[in-house]
Amino acid sequence: MIDALTYNTKHLIGALVAGGVKYFVLSPGSRSTPVALLIAEYVKYHPNVKLYVDVDERSAGFFALGIAKTTLSPVVLLGTSGTAITEYTPAVAEASVSEVPLIILSTDRPQELQYNGAPQTLPQQNIFGKLTKADLAFNLQETHQDITEYIDFATQKFVHLANTAPCGPVQFNLPLRKPLMPTLGNQDNVLVKQLSFSKPSQIKIDIPPITAKRVLILAGPNVAESYSDALLAFSQPYHVPVIADILSRVRTPETIHGIDYLLKFDQVTDELKPDLVIRFGKTPVSAKVLQWLKHANIETWHVDLNAGTDHSRHVSRAILMPPRDFLRQAKVVLSEEQQAFETNWQLINQKDKQLVHEMAIVSALNRAVSPKTPIFVANSMPIRDMDDFFTGFNTQTIYANRGANGIDGVISTALGMSVTTKQRSLLLTGDLTLFHDMNGLMMARNYQLPLDIIVIDNNGGGIFSFLPQAEATEYFETLFGTPLELDISKIASLYQLSYVLLKQPEDLRKVLNQPTDGTRIIVYPSNRTQNVRDHQKYIGESL
Amino acid sequence: MIDALTYNTKHLIGALVAGGVKYFVLSPGSRSTPVALLIAEYVKYHPNVKLYVDVDERSAGFFALGIAKTTLSPVVLLGTSGTAITEYTPAVAEASVSEVPLIILSTDRPQELQYNGAPQTLPQQNIFGKLTKADLAFNLQETHQDITEYIDFATQKFVHLANTAPCGPVQFNLPLRKPLMPTLGNQDNVLVKQLSFSKPSQIKIDIPPITAKRVLILAGPNVAESYSDALLAFSQPYHVPVIADILSRVRTPETIHGIDYLLKFDQVTDELKPDLVIRFGKTPVSAKVLQWLKHANIETWHVDLNAGTDHSRHVSRAILMPPRDFLRQAKVVLSEEQQAFETNWQLINQKDKQLVHEMAIVSALNRAVSPKTPIFVANSMPIRDMDDFFTGFNTQTIYANRGANGIDGVISTALGMSVTTKQRSLLLTGDLTLFHDMNGLMMARNYQLPLDIIVIDNNGGGIFSFLPQAEATEYFETLFGTPLELDISKIASLYQLSYVLLKQPEDLRKVLNQPTDGTRIIVYPSNRTQNVRDHQKYIGESL
Repeated sequence: MIDALTYNTKHLIGALVAGGVKYFVLSPGSRSTPVALLIAEYVKYHPNVKLYVDVDERSAGFFALGIAKTTLSPVVLLGTSGTAITEYTPAVAEASVSEVPLIILSTDRPQELQYNGAPQTLPQQNIFGKLTKADLAFNLQETHQDITEYIDFATQKFVHLANTAPCGPVQFNLPLRKPLMPTLGNQDNVLVKQLSFSKPSQIKIDIPPITAKRVLILAGPNVAESYSDALLAFSQPYHVPVIADILSRVRTPETIHGIDYLLKFDQVTDELKPDLVIRFGKTPVSAKVLQWLKHANIETWHVDLNAGTDHSRHVSRAILMPPRDFLRQAKVVLSEEQQAFETNWQLINQKDKQLVHEMAIVSALNRAVSPKTPIFVANSMPIRDMDDFFTGFNTQTIYANRGANGIDGVISTALGMSVTTKQRSLLLTGDLTLFHDMNGLMMARNYQLPLDIIVIDNNGGGIFSFLPQAEATEYFETLFGTPLELDISKIASLYQLSYVLLKQPEDLRKVLNQPTDGTRIIVYPSNRTQNVRDHQKYIGESL
Repeated sequence: MIDALTYNTKHLIGALVAGGVKYFVLSPGSRSTPVALLIAEYVKYHPNVKLYVDVDERSAGFFALGIAKTTLSPVVLLGTSGTAITEYTPAVAEASVSEVPLIILSTDRPQELQYNGAPQTLPQQNIFGKLTKADLAFNLQETHQDITEYIDFATQKFVHLANTAPCGPVQFNLPLRKPLMPTLGNQDNVLVKQLSFSKPSQIKIDIPPITAKRVLILAGPNVAESYSDALLAFSQPYHVPVIADILSRVRTPETIHGIDYLLKFDQVTDELKPDLVIRFGKTPVSAKVLQWLKHANIETWHVDLNAGTDHSRHVSRAILMPPRDFLRQAKVVLSEEQQAFETNWQLINQKDKQLVHEMAIVSALNRAVSPKTPIFVANSMPIRDMDDFFTGFNTQTIYANRGANGIDGVISTALGMSVTTKQRSLLLTGDLTLFHDMNGLMMARNYQLPLDIIVIDNNGGGIFSFLPQAEATEYFETLFGTPLELDISKIASLYQLSYVLLKQPEDLRKVLNQPTDGTRIIVYPSNRTQNVRDHQKYIGESL
């Protein structure tokens, strides 16, 4: 009989895997020793389960987020007691808002060291507060059959909870007493009681027949799988044009994109104005499109499991189901106008665009990436430019941290994405975002991760030049512009990564087609002031 | 009459300064615009108040912590909504445990955007949970005299709360609605109603006369000012030997240091065993000394405002007052043995030490630093080695993040320390700790901060080699050793900092005496395996 710590920890790991965990991300520490060692041993004998070690817990949190986001499955983070656990907070916050299943195993000092002057001891239970869906504690060192069974059942239940829409993070707090060394090399099988959960295959809601004359779909960000096929089967016979957000997973060359640009044409706000808009998914990247729906008082329905959360306070019907179920069940009573309405939207969608500088690099991506390249897009300007100028393919998967929309952790999230696919991946980011998570590059080097990082280097925070504070010229550069003055080739050299200086957008295709290994940093120099002028000329007004 | 936002924000800033704030640390963002701009304007006209801008909020949090820790006064952190605020959590956790007054101004989206699908929106109110002493919200955009008066009063009360022992962080959450631009250039005086707080000058407690035969003081970490003078006035006439922790602020060449080393001698555990130990302050760096008091069953009193928090569960009398008050009021009934007892402790304290490699570099510091150089010490091995081998001077101020004891944020905390003194400062750290907060070096470059960073480069996590997990050889390097393989000269080059490779400890004095500006990185190459052998030979057992 092995010791209770080893026995229960093996049950915990077994139950996590039984619940669907395939990836563990851990950071070094002393208190987490037994769990870390037994995970390492488990992985050795189960090559389908992967383990990554990241010494910076903040980056580790986002790395796990990237894996969970792209695999749509729960990922485990293991950390040691103290501030290490609090380093996960930014990633937990993003996971909470963008509904990504993260499982945090926070090892802790035992009960008798709490509030007692012991070093490295925080009130860890529920330390993420409202950011986690739930939290519990296991005493892995107690010998009692009830405890072991509880670990089996509660673990699988919690993993299921994290992975049930709306998905989100959960915390297991694990108080551990010294000695912390588990028994290694014991090959006795640990039998975890399996608990399977039934899943609804479809949600049925009585949807009234759609009788509006001109119907349009606005497909917002979608964190689940693509519903392209169901969308096509609905929009084609009913002639419904589709504005597809860059993160909708249904954008193709045929869907409408760049709505910020199109809205400056009177034709769109006048002749092309719909009578009913059916919104799918989360808040679109374009803020203008929601403002338009509201100010033009266009009837708007919202289809989403979390429908009714509309910060523009304009949606009038909340339909709580996934887009796929809605598209299968909804019926349109075709009006005479609908077909011409669709044709006109398609025509304006083909409008020629004269794109330069930062906009041109995004546009060049259309011609440079393979239809299956997974793309991660940083917040701030890159996501807006991608929404405006990237056409994409229906096989393209595009991701962003589009919940709390931070500029933090982006490198690590993209690197997390890169380990989940056989295809080489791509990240589009600015220099400030690169700097904020520079430590994330350690994983790129240590695991030789296949990622191309395109850095639009405009030496600081580009988005602020679009905002009213740009007028406070006396304080602007210090408080907002924050020029970094970093030579990015030195960052590449520090982490032993390939480096390419991109002179013009047209060269991007050639660069991306060069065979390469590991992570490569591709820098495209830009200029904040010029970029504002380019955008204003193009879109016609500020953000 | 200026707008409510500008008016109330000026009151907030004025009340913060009236409460004692002299430093603001902010990170760029959009939501925080009005507060950031008005702070910048305030600082322009009040040169005694300082503003620092740090683009990485995690580093900013620790930078503010460093200033607050060394000035013993509250420091304001201003951040924008979303994950930016959560980036402060590690520093807030450390401030909470090590009792440092931090004031977090978290700007937020307004009420109508909460739980409504709005981007970049988190449940920010009380987001740090139990880690903050208190939190409140101000609506800076409301025009009502009650609100303005409330801002005046509650702000001063909250700053006082943060700065009252046990000190700690507090949060002001500031929901702000667009437009966010304040009125700049308005020179009308804003009159903040002043609220002053009376402070007890002394706590009196009836302390029984100390009748034990052999009395010893164990001065633990002390976050307040030094009480060296009171200690001397007590210990000299009563012949009480003092074991002074490296963070006690009372260590001098005359106090006992390196108790971990001394405890291996039978003489100490036998002839030098005290009958009563009076502990001051927080948990000592040496874990062994507390184990000794307990296992040898030596009567122990604890003098601290938070006395009774003893994770060794051995203290029998908790005296809730500062050491200075205790030393003034306590009386010792001198026994015949006390003087010889003191002499014998002094003799063993002079024992010759043969120090090599990592230990020698710490020892070389004794001869290399000026008595007034502020020193910051990283956790893990450096703090232990400093406790064992650094003699110091009674004018020396030595700091560490000795609450949650993280390896994160150390660079920034030390840089925060460096801006508070006219003396050039020093940081002793390992390479893993340097890496974890490498982004912190941006402040070193941007503000040309006068800090010497001595990096003991043993390529990874040195402390783990001392722990039982070192025996799990198959997994050790991956999970614990985590070699970084970083060329630290490239880090210096990236941030344009001076770099020195230290060949031997004896050169340290020469290097530190060279005149220099800004931050300098001094690397001392070491070897983890060799270091374990050195320590084991010296101390005689594992940590």
